[in-house]
Amino acid sequence: MKTVKILDTTLRDGAQGEGISFSLEDKLNIVTKLDKLGISYIEAGNPFSNPKDAEFFHAVEKMQLRHATLVAFGSTRHHSITAEQDKGCLSLLEAGTKAVCIFGKSWDMHVSQVLGTTLEENLAMISDTVRFFKDHGKEVIYDAEHFFDGYKANPEYALKTVQAAAQAGAECVVLCDTNGAAFPSEVAQITKIVVEQVDTAVGVHCHNDIGCAVANSMMAVEAGATHVQGTYIGFGERCGNANLSTIIANLQLKCGYECIPPEKMKRLTKTARYIAEVANLMLPGSLPYVGKSAFAHKGGMHVDGVTKNPHSFEHIDPDQVGNSRNLLLSEVSGRTAIAARMSELDSSITRNSIETAEFIEMLKERELEGYQFESADASLEIFALKYLGKYRPAFELEYFKILGEQPAVHVERSAMATVKVKVDDRIEMTAAEGDGPVHALDVALRRALEVFYPSLHKVRLVDFKVRVIESAAATAAPVRVLIVSTDGESTWTTVGVSADIIDASWQALRDSIEYKLLRDHAV
Amino acid sequence: MKTVKILDTTLRDGAQGEGISFSLEDKLNIVTKLDKLGISYIEAGNPFSNPKDAEFFHAVEKMQLRHATLVAFGSTRHHSITAEQDKGCLSLLEAGTKAVCIFGKSWDMHVSQVLGTTLEENLAMISDTVRFFKDHGKEVIYDAEHFFDGYKANPEYALKTVQAAAQAGAECVVLCDTNGAAFPSEVAQITKIVVEQVDTAVGVHCHNDIGCAVANSMMAVEAGATHVQGTYIGFGERCGNANLSTIIANLQLKCGYECIPPEKMKRLTKTARYIAEVANLMLPGSLPYVGKSAFAHKGGMHVDGVTKNPHSFEHIDPDQVGNSRNLLLSEVSGRTAIAARMSELDSSITRNSIETAEFIEMLKERELEGYQFESADASLEIFALKYLGKYRPAFELEYFKILGEQPAVHVERSAMATVKVKVDDRIEMTAAEGDGPVHALDVALRRALEVFYPSLHKVRLVDFKVRVIESAAATAAPVRVLIVSTDGESTWTTVGVSADIIDASWQALRDSIEYKLLRDHAV
Repeated sequence: MKTVKILDTTLRDGAQGEGISFSLEDKLNIVTKLDKLGISYIEAGNPFSNPKDAEFFHAVEKMQLRHATLVAFGSTRHHSITAEQDKGCLSLLEAGTKAVCIFGKSWDMHVSQVLGTTLEENLAMISDTVRFFKDHGKEVIYDAEHFFDGYKANPEYALKTVQAAAQAGAECVVLCDTNGAAFPSEVAQITKIVVEQVDTAVGVHCHNDIGCAVANSMMAVEAGATHVQGTYIGFGERCGNANLSTIIANLQLKCGYECIPPEKMKRLTKTARYIAEVANLMLPGSLPYVGKSAFAHKGGMHVDGVTKNPHSFEHIDPDQVGNSRNLLLSEVSGRTAIAARMSELDSSITRNSIETAEFIEMLKERELEGYQFESADASLEIFALKYLGKYRPAFELEYFKILGEQPAVHVERSAMATVKVKVDDRIEMTAAEGDGPVHALDVALRRALEVFYPSLHKVRLVDFKVRVIESAAATAAPVRVLIVSTDGESTWTTVGVSADIIDASWQALRDSIEYKLLRDHAV
Repeated sequence: MKTVKILDTTLRDGAQGEGISFSLEDKLNIVTKLDKLGISYIEAGNPFSNPKDAEFFHAVEKMQLRHATLVAFGSTRHHSITAEQDKGCLSLLEAGTKAVCIFGKSWDMHVSQVLGTTLEENLAMISDTVRFFKDHGKEVIYDAEHFFDGYKANPEYALKTVQAAAQAGAECVVLCDTNGAAFPSEVAQITKIVVEQVDTAVGVHCHNDIGCAVANSMMAVEAGATHVQGTYIGFGERCGNANLSTIIANLQLKCGYECIPPEKMKRLTKTARYIAEVANLMLPGSLPYVGKSAFAHKGGMHVDGVTKNPHSFEHIDPDQVGNSRNLLLSEVSGRTAIAARMSELDSSITRNSIETAEFIEMLKERELEGYQFESADASLEIFALKYLGKYRPAFELEYFKILGEQPAVHVERSAMATVKVKVDDRIEMTAAEGDGPVHALDVALRRALEVFYPSLHKVRLVDFKVRVIESAAATAAPVRVLIVSTDGESTWTTVGVSADIIDASWQALRDSIEYKLLRDHAV
């Protein structure tokens, strides 16, 4: 079996992404998940440039990793001193990892203009630093920064830099497309030359500035690279790093390489969702293999085709990566998709049941009013349960009242909501302030219901989308509100439609809570 | 100059993306923007499968497009009938576009299993349909569905299908990677063979299921394709279509092709933002070339390097695509544009005036809070007048109070607003009911002010958009409200930002009225 070693740098290069910031706890959790997935190397930080990273390496020593080798990241020594005198090299040693990743310069322009030294001294800096860490018993990965740009400017010199690292004992030299602008055919050609000329393993590290990071990584492997660096869901500085969840699936399911143990492939999707959650990012629905929409079908023709023969419109079985097909409902989607969803609630229902036809008619009416169920899976389920007579509301609203004013009388919060609910025959009434009436209503409602249902305490809303459906009537036009909720384990989406944004939000909030309670009861 | 023709299918294939739904007005607006950008073909819908699309083609006939050819999309005729008998072909004719795009089968498995006909009949379906549209004077683009998968299964037959289209007169045959799982090296090899064997222009249409849609499109062009299909910001079914904003920039800035007129390149970024706004999607910050973070630098080393020599960590000058290192809308429009706006208010102001620099700084601060002035021309003007000390408010708000409740006490209207305003020393107080608090506030405010300013009677709001700026805080997250108003003669847009949707709406409503009164006084 051909193998490709994967180095995940979510915690180092990924943390350069805009809006990304990991706590110590976040980092330990991500290490655990990546190790469980069977990633070969986890690059976890630069102890010299970031004191928090030093603290992390101290904390991580206690962990028992099963698959992964932890890697600390740093640069070649400064010019005109020895590695032993270099504070960066010394702090990298102190991180105490089995492996280190050292980056250095390959582009002559960078050596003179950014480092301000000679081409010869840069080669010595590479050799000395690699040898220093080899002498201290480390496995050394050498990252050749800007390798492709450097090679295009001065191929001989760029090759000398990676040869210097290889001759000094680096286990792997990694060709980095630091500016992310190399073309797939260039990466293929240049990697092939390096593989022929350098006497150690060759890796690749791509960025996505021209949208080719995944393809470039694949081309490098085709050309002989056996080590791929990236971030698990692709985030990173500027346009991000090569997306490892895509690359692992491509190489392992389609090219016959082993990147992670085969039995771990089903963890790909949940690992992606987990990392997105920790990074506090929405995982893009369209992400290859692991996105929520990666296997979703909307066009009637495709839905029909995929049901006749999944292979006809699906490149893999979504189950192979732990994802699932998510047939979308819409004006163009057909009976098959809806019957499949309904039969999950009542196994006697098939494509030709009268219930399927009736429910589709009801859905269409709703969709004409502006509801959109294709993404609001939770509201769809509640709607179907209502239609099937299997729905039992967890609470009744007696009333709510919201009040907003300007200038705000209470300085911090501009709105107030009062909510009165009934569960069985018990009444609970409460009030809350909020940033605007929807927020106040959300807080008050959950506060009132937590008295009856403590598990609601864990629920929080992670996204709130408002869309005006027909613009002609302006402020009196119907709006659609989509709310994404989570309880830390799963995530669900609900929808509400009304000319009144408060009412639309109310519908989506109510469905969100009902859905959570339904699931709690089902378990 | 080598040229590559671009076909944008945002309105057809893009509309298959999860959560995407365009109104008629949205579609016309997007056509206008893509035409301004200089796109060759705009594929705008399938008039047979979607009645709303037929209505669109009727409306679009009145538009004068300067660059683009409008394309209607449909399939080859059904088997065992003629094209003249086929309802799909007939409705495609009725769309009245200069060009049509016909898709048909190339994969033998699909012909027998999905269409349920013979391989020979499928070839006849292709020829007949292409000839039917050629006989009616149409330019014909032929989309060979699943071409790469089909070629891998049965190369001879796949080639025959595109040869059939070419021989029947199709101006272009387009190799579609419908399942989105072809590898870059495969696309290169197979496209090269088709270019050699088929006697008409060859195009490519890629999907992103293995993360290679952009790279595959580039590889096809390298192999001789001269037509590329995709969606402008990459959305579409499952993992999306090839992202045209990336491909156009790659081909035109790095490979010496002309896709759009060179002077239009600076529109790339604002067109992307516009389409995302209309589709009510967050434009991913990491999108190559056009994303907000595409040229952002966080790592200290990179910031340093980019200051010493931008070329060292930037693959292009962001200005070439109308983007900037830290993208802010004021910078997209640029100092020159802002100076031009300011000199309309004070003719002594030029590009180099201290006022221009100061005002841009203030704009940046506002934009960091979430304001967006690019489309909110009226709010920008009011903001500039305030900065110049030339703003004199037409009224003062004493207070407003809004009340919403459920169940609604007054059956027709769910909310009520009370407004008290002062003009000079006169007070006017009024109240109104509305469909939701924003509507009630809008009605009450205009009713109160019409007493002083009768011309407000003609003002009505034609659009109202709400956008959550940061999703993390959900219902307490800041929202941006954009309001479009008209007095029957002109149209203007205003903006408001707040964590409270009522407050954000209030800001935009107030600006809208102030702007109308400013214009009345100016005339």
